[in-house]
Amino acid sequence: MEFSSKLLENAVYEMSQLPGIGKRTALRLVLHLLRQPETQTQHLVNALGTLRKEIKFCKVCHSISDMDTCEICSNPVRNRKIICVVEDIRDVMAIESTGQYRGLYHVLGGKISPLDGVGPQELHINSLIEKAKSDNVEELIFALSATMEGDTTNFFIYKQLEGVDIKTSTIARGIGVNDELEYADEVTLGRSILNRIPFVNALRNG
Amino acid sequence: MEFSSKLLENAVYEMSQLPGIGKRTALRLVLHLLRQPETQTQHLVNALGTLRKEIKFCKVCHSISDMDTCEICSNPVRNRKIICVVEDIRDVMAIESTGQYRGLYHVLGGKISPLDGVGPQELHINSLIEKAKSDNVEELIFALSATMEGDTTNFFIYKQLEGVDIKTSTIARGIGVNDELEYADEVTLGRSILNRIPFVNALRNG
Repeated sequence: MEFSSKLLENAVYEMSQLPGIGKRTALRLVLHLLRQPETQTQHLVNALGTLRKEIKFCKVCHSISDMDTCEICSNPVRNRKIICVVEDIRDVMAIESTGQYRGLYHVLGGKISPLDGVGPQELHINSLIEKAKSDNVEELIFALSATMEGDTTNFFIYKQLEGVDIKTSTIARGIGVNDELEYADEVTLGRSILNRIPFVNALRNG
Repeated sequence: MEFSSKLLENAVYEMSQLPGIGKRTALRLVLHLLRQPETQTQHLVNALGTLRKEIKFCKVCHSISDMDTCEICSNPVRNRKIICVVEDIRDVMAIESTGQYRGLYHVLGGKISPLDGVGPQELHINSLIEKAKSDNVEELIFALSATMEGDTTNFFIYKQLEGVDIKTSTIARGIGVNDELEYADEVTLGRSILNRIPFVNALRNG
């Protein structure tokens, strides 16, 4: 792509550094901003700049928070005996939106992935082990993605917990509630048979 | 979507104002920026802010340019007798990349679209008519998209040129050079038959 303007070229280049945004899309987005009132660009630029500069993480669960301790961790009604281990804040938001979980979270900040240069030291694993060793925590729920990296991370944490008196569980994998069996992939369908649950439990969970 | 951080929510909101970027994608992009060094966000923010503040348009062809007159308009080698009329700078870049055109451009800034509130006054049509009336210009090539809005815009300009001694042409529409006939849409295929060209011309154009 040949640009007639260095300013334009630079803006397109920086925009195309975002994941999933190619050069063409970046150009489309930048030209869109140029057609809008200048205030829209200012708002975007301010919002991103302020977030990046003033971003804080909850010192308990490492989730993004405007306060030192996030709303969930500081909520006295939440069950402090259960901690759900997730990769990032999107998982917290997804689980919160179900309204089915009243425990706390622990955001690892990713999963162990040697190929991407992410080892256990890059993640918030040590603080999780410390929490797990405290008397108050009874259960860790692993809610990482069911990939090799997710499984590796689960197992790494599990090994660190040897000798610690704590329950560990992982979220149920299976056919989506509204999904047809014929369209499910074999691995998921197989797992949903292996991990079948008593029918009376299913009745109870509605 | 429920956010635990107003700063995050605000950044995601502003990002999702971009065309084709939904809330989920916006969150993914913002979280990506948070995982990168702060300099990446600074570069993006500076590039967008500077472009929006210092953006200039060529005073001859209205294309984006860092100078008062863009490189194409100020290039003494370009043929000043032919002007290609396009919607925006992306079209200029696309045509330039072919290396087949040595004339000048005129960027309208869009096309007439009453539904979107774009009338002739919002576009650079008057300056085009002025140019066309000058003695030096011999041909206008319409290269707008072949939509109702594009056709309307072409026709509007054409009517304004009544009594002006100037050639007008439109770029050829037809089957793409490497496309199979069976996959072409009927309108394009039909047009490519109606607008067939002498075989010797095709031989000459390679």
